[in-house]
Amino acid sequence: MSQTSAGTEGNASYGRKPFKRSASHFADRITADGRDGWPVEAGRYRLVVSRACPWASRVLVSRRLLGLEEALSLAVTDPIQDDRSWRFTLDPDGRDPVLGIRFLHEAYDARESDYPGGVSVPAIVDVPSGKLVTNDYQRITLDLATEWTELHRPGAPDLYPEARREEIDEVVEGVYRDVNNGVYRAGFASDQQEYEQAYEGVFRRLGWVSERLRGQRYLVGDTITEADIRLFTTLVRFDAVYHGHFKCNRYKLTEDPVLWGYVRDLYQTPGFGDTVDFDHIKRHYYEVHTGINPTGIVPVGPDLSGWLTPHGREELGGRPFGDGTPPGPPPAGEEIPAVGRP
Amino acid sequence: MSQTSAGTEGNASYGRKPFKRSASHFADRITADGRDGWPVEAGRYRLVVSRACPWASRVLVSRRLLGLEEALSLAVTDPIQDDRSWRFTLDPDGRDPVLGIRFLHEAYDARESDYPGGVSVPAIVDVPSGKLVTNDYQRITLDLATEWTELHRPGAPDLYPEARREEIDEVVEGVYRDVNNGVYRAGFASDQQEYEQAYEGVFRRLGWVSERLRGQRYLVGDTITEADIRLFTTLVRFDAVYHGHFKCNRYKLTEDPVLWGYVRDLYQTPGFGDTVDFDHIKRHYYEVHTGINPTGIVPVGPDLSGWLTPHGREELGGRPFGDGTPPGPPPAGEEIPAVGRP
Repeated sequence: MSQTSAGTEGNASYGRKPFKRSASHFADRITADGRDGWPVEAGRYRLVVSRACPWASRVLVSRRLLGLEEALSLAVTDPIQDDRSWRFTLDPDGRDPVLGIRFLHEAYDARESDYPGGVSVPAIVDVPSGKLVTNDYQRITLDLATEWTELHRPGAPDLYPEARREEIDEVVEGVYRDVNNGVYRAGFASDQQEYEQAYEGVFRRLGWVSERLRGQRYLVGDTITEADIRLFTTLVRFDAVYHGHFKCNRYKLTEDPVLWGYVRDLYQTPGFGDTVDFDHIKRHYYEVHTGINPTGIVPVGPDLSGWLTPHGREELGGRPFGDGTPPGPPPAGEEIPAVGRP
Repeated sequence: MSQTSAGTEGNASYGRKPFKRSASHFADRITADGRDGWPVEAGRYRLVVSRACPWASRVLVSRRLLGLEEALSLAVTDPIQDDRSWRFTLDPDGRDPVLGIRFLHEAYDARESDYPGGVSVPAIVDVPSGKLVTNDYQRITLDLATEWTELHRPGAPDLYPEARREEIDEVVEGVYRDVNNGVYRAGFASDQQEYEQAYEGVFRRLGWVSERLRGQRYLVGDTITEADIRLFTTLVRFDAVYHGHFKCNRYKLTEDPVLWGYVRDLYQTPGFGDTVDFDHIKRHYYEVHTGINPTGIVPVGPDLSGWLTPHGREELGGRPFGDGTPPGPPPAGEEIPAVGRP
């Protein structure tokens, strides 16, 4: 999750002790049977994201692929937090039009008064009560795939197929430790040794992934799964942010033909690239992390014009959506402004 | 020149006003006729450099190409300055064995007592008196090429040929403004606009250079000249430092086939690559510029293994040393430690 403690508040923490990602605090689940008190219900919940955040962006992709845009509405925060964390300053009057709040922390406070912890995205809020339901970024996408099935669009893919769960879990565990979170451990390292350990992990795992993807189109099986979504949201940020800002600079993705082909293949698949806002991504990391970029200057590069070039991965076969179909275009109001697209 | 004001002291300056490179303060010239009181004389002067510094590295290359290693001895400073600026902490007891001083500023003070300005490399010091003669980084290499001729090795190239001087001067003027100094203006910019202007200048000029070098092996004429030396010392640092640390990240040199071929061609030419210490370069920039890299963490990348790969530029013809010959290997004691070479 992207919480304030990895952002503005986090400046106080890196440089002193190893970067450690907090566990999610609110882990209620929204399920088909409503056993935690939160039944799946169309129109009842609101998803709050930052398009800058790789953890929140997983949910954006899953929601698009599964066709949950109408059932689960979307609030997009300003990519730049202030000392009150994620805020709705992109909306008219600085208020989310559905929840009526100015800061995401208001939904946290509605759930638990004077909640003292970090405010993170992705978050799902119960619209009638205004209360946060969950910010459990490791769980939300799995539940969208397996609990929200009655609301899936016709032709929605199975992103977490029963027969493949063990393999998916194993792959995402290593990818999480070394890559998804590894780039943060490199970027927020408090000393050279800690940084170098994280860096080695990032590139060792990317090497493993690249080898695996040389002869197969997707990470697990021959269709898009949860494993691809989780890797994608880190890879799409790699050259633009992690390479320079987090010093993960052995090579750019564009220098690895397999990874560069794989990430472009996904980017060009409906539901992936149409959730990516490079403008939000770059401004968030470079403006918020003043502990590692004190000037707040945002790089102009890299050149993004290659993202829509042919990737040739179709030759590997694979059935992106299995027996399903691709989603249609994003709903009105959710299109990424052209400035953020290559 | 690399002076303290672009280093530790400089932290106070960027963020407040546009980065401005000071003019050299000591501009006496060492000439064949000795008109400034400093005649060319074998063994009389000592060249002080940091191998991290692109301006000092120009002199390292010229001295090697012209075979002046014995006539003009070399002192190499620690790549990391402290608050007393460049220091001889790499030498036994932390003293330059010839000048007997611990800090370069002692030679400045010998020349002008209580000299209040910045201490910069390259610097040439008169050994008998211990006084600084010149730190005029724009002039030193030209004088090595044109005034020190009686001490050149047999087969030394003409690095500043009379018939080409106008063209060389014009090329180096634009390269200086937009590239050599442009990368610093980008990296030390005090605001987004100043950075973006510098960035545009860097890549506009690199585009011009790349176009020019597409069909010709060297920048001016068909031999190596002063213009190539001045471009080389910036290009060799580009991917390792300026791309990330100074945010000049439209593309890496490795992504431009012409520039990447050109810089490898020079790197592999005796007198160029054998002066380059990537370890000194990376540690200097990332450890000293705490204003833009407060953690002082030095990136592990980029992968440097490509520097010795075939570049194919011989096909363009050209006579690297004109009617002359390549220099021999570096003298004993001046070899770059293997750790710094790819």
